[in-house]
Amino acid sequence: MNPACLNLVEKQFFTFGEPPHELVLESGERLGPVTLAYETLGTLTPDKGNAILVVHALTGDSHVAGCYTTEDARPGWWEIMVGPGKAIDTERYFVICANVLGGCMGSTGPSSLNPVTGKPYGVSFPLVTIGDMVTAQKALIDHLGISRLLAVVGGSVGGMQVLAWCARYPEMVRAAIPLATTPRHSAQSIAFNEVARQAIMADPHWQGGDYYGQAKPDLGLAVARMIGHITYLSNESMRQKFGRQLKSRDALSFHFDAGFEVESYLRYQGNKFVERFDANSFLYLTKAADYFDLDDYAAGGLAVPFKDSRTSFLVVAFTSDWLYPTEQSRALVQLLKRNGLDVSFCEIQSDWGHDAFLLPSERLHALVAAFLSRIFREESSDV
Amino acid sequence: MNPACLNLVEKQFFTFGEPPHELVLESGERLGPVTLAYETLGTLTPDKGNAILVVHALTGDSHVAGCYTTEDARPGWWEIMVGPGKAIDTERYFVICANVLGGCMGSTGPSSLNPVTGKPYGVSFPLVTIGDMVTAQKALIDHLGISRLLAVVGGSVGGMQVLAWCARYPEMVRAAIPLATTPRHSAQSIAFNEVARQAIMADPHWQGGDYYGQAKPDLGLAVARMIGHITYLSNESMRQKFGRQLKSRDALSFHFDAGFEVESYLRYQGNKFVERFDANSFLYLTKAADYFDLDDYAAGGLAVPFKDSRTSFLVVAFTSDWLYPTEQSRALVQLLKRNGLDVSFCEIQSDWGHDAFLLPSERLHALVAAFLSRIFREESSDV
Repeated sequence: MNPACLNLVEKQFFTFGEPPHELVLESGERLGPVTLAYETLGTLTPDKGNAILVVHALTGDSHVAGCYTTEDARPGWWEIMVGPGKAIDTERYFVICANVLGGCMGSTGPSSLNPVTGKPYGVSFPLVTIGDMVTAQKALIDHLGISRLLAVVGGSVGGMQVLAWCARYPEMVRAAIPLATTPRHSAQSIAFNEVARQAIMADPHWQGGDYYGQAKPDLGLAVARMIGHITYLSNESMRQKFGRQLKSRDALSFHFDAGFEVESYLRYQGNKFVERFDANSFLYLTKAADYFDLDDYAAGGLAVPFKDSRTSFLVVAFTSDWLYPTEQSRALVQLLKRNGLDVSFCEIQSDWGHDAFLLPSERLHALVAAFLSRIFREESSDV
Repeated sequence: MNPACLNLVEKQFFTFGEPPHELVLESGERLGPVTLAYETLGTLTPDKGNAILVVHALTGDSHVAGCYTTEDARPGWWEIMVGPGKAIDTERYFVICANVLGGCMGSTGPSSLNPVTGKPYGVSFPLVTIGDMVTAQKALIDHLGISRLLAVVGGSVGGMQVLAWCARYPEMVRAAIPLATTPRHSAQSIAFNEVARQAIMADPHWQGGDYYGQAKPDLGLAVARMIGHITYLSNESMRQKFGRQLKSRDALSFHFDAGFEVESYLRYQGNKFVERFDANSFLYLTKAADYFDLDDYAAGGLAVPFKDSRTSFLVVAFTSDWLYPTEQSRALVQLLKRNGLDVSFCEIQSDWGHDAFLLPSERLHALVAAFLSRIFREESSDV
């Protein structure tokens, strides 16, 4: 039995925004009711001062750590970071993680039933933004009776949500840890997402998004995932993992089967992904990431994000992350410093590309643990 | 009228390898007859000492420069480099350019009729290598009665052919100019090509390669081309060209149409490409590029390529080329120097990524012109 399986968690659901009190989206459209799937670990202290919201990346879910049953073969996606005695220590902190709005792992998204039609939304689902995801998360945090989060933590597209939280609700966020993220997508990042979307929409099974209950656009979604995977790894990590190694020990096969190990790996990743993910959600979430621009998230209509913020920041970038290169984190750090905020910044040496934030790293874990301990100590001594 | 249209060229065809004298491929398979489409510019001198073979990149063709008619709206793909008074000066040199074996612009490839069945080959076409392309080009050069080329010049996958020429037939190549190329694909380059191939093969119109005379796998091929385009540009050039600029001057559209300029550009490139290129050829040519490894091309079975070569080299890389980064050209230069060869190497500062070798560059043009002049002068004084 996996020792992690002693740390049992349960997927819970929170529904809000029943008409006529729908969630008003950034596009101006209204959406409701809205359900968020979420999980919690640890115990909320009576003063509710130990809550940490973990936000997931593009294709993640609420299952951040622990197991659903003692027989569960696989714990959550950030098991190495979250749990008893870990950097985000569930013996000390109360950890919350929700599947994003627009997702497909229990939260309302394009594969959910539209209560008006009784059929899945498909592409009639409104386009949601990173800010809309955060608005929905805030409704959950309010529902849990928490008035201020000790920290909001997330990497990649999760890091964008961290930034949107800090800009939108500065008074609710004591500390923030945006990892391997960017204040806005470059043209190149938009380009990769667009090609991935085109791959899905080119699949005839996509049928304009109306494929539920029928054959799914699995081939297109697999190609989309493969494109993503290339951007998550670094040139160097691919060299170390695969190089030009052939799948068989023999010579070149002279046909179109996966001959190189790297081809086989990508095909496997693509095929595995379609079992768990909805193609329309992939379209919506990549679009939300492309639309995100921190400049649009000035709190309370202020021209400058973070102007009246007192949030403490730990910003972390990874040397070989070419999807969101370190200079994009540095631009963020400069913005935060210009606003006089308490900012720690670290660029971690890593060969593992964008994915590094999800992989074991003593450095990362020590940084996160120490930063959270300091914040928690400062808060406790304030009381 | 375009002034380039005064420089008229004609597509010609050379056929060889009629059974039982088929071309024997590296895979061991036999292919014949084989036709190469080719074009020439300038005049071959009586001693046949002024011939330069230009080899094209992945999706190029024999139409390197000049126009087919005086009304032609578009001259050849390297018009800025090849022509009267240009770096590859057709008043001095006799320039030959052939469509590669496996291509779809007049040379034998998967869209050609298989004389045995009377139908297009499709994926029954044997897998050809960079070395096979060079073997076919050598047959053309022999046919033209040229015993030694003054130079072989090409960028990207064309550069691989330059290297294969030098390794296979060192006595036939007085000078070589491999531009923006690599001695072998990294795992990352293979990965991009593999995803592009998967996009084509995922298109139901591909039909296992047997789509001729029916609907073509245009959507898959367009996605494949879009992936390629991202790798041909640099992050910086995309920033300068597109940034986060929107297509309409209005705000975000909140739907899946191409909202950002970069999305619109990629869709346009993808759609334009399918009009001129065959999807199966794309599969074969990317596979040939992935298979290429200079170490396999030792001349005459020698363990070390270039061991007995006396070819002079001009190797050029571009700073922002992340598909074939400068370090790969440096590795090539080191190999050449270890073999005591005459090598000039230049890394040109450019923001334009891998595509830089096709774009106007005073530096590149001056380098190529001076290098060729020196070689031509040395050869002339030898006589």
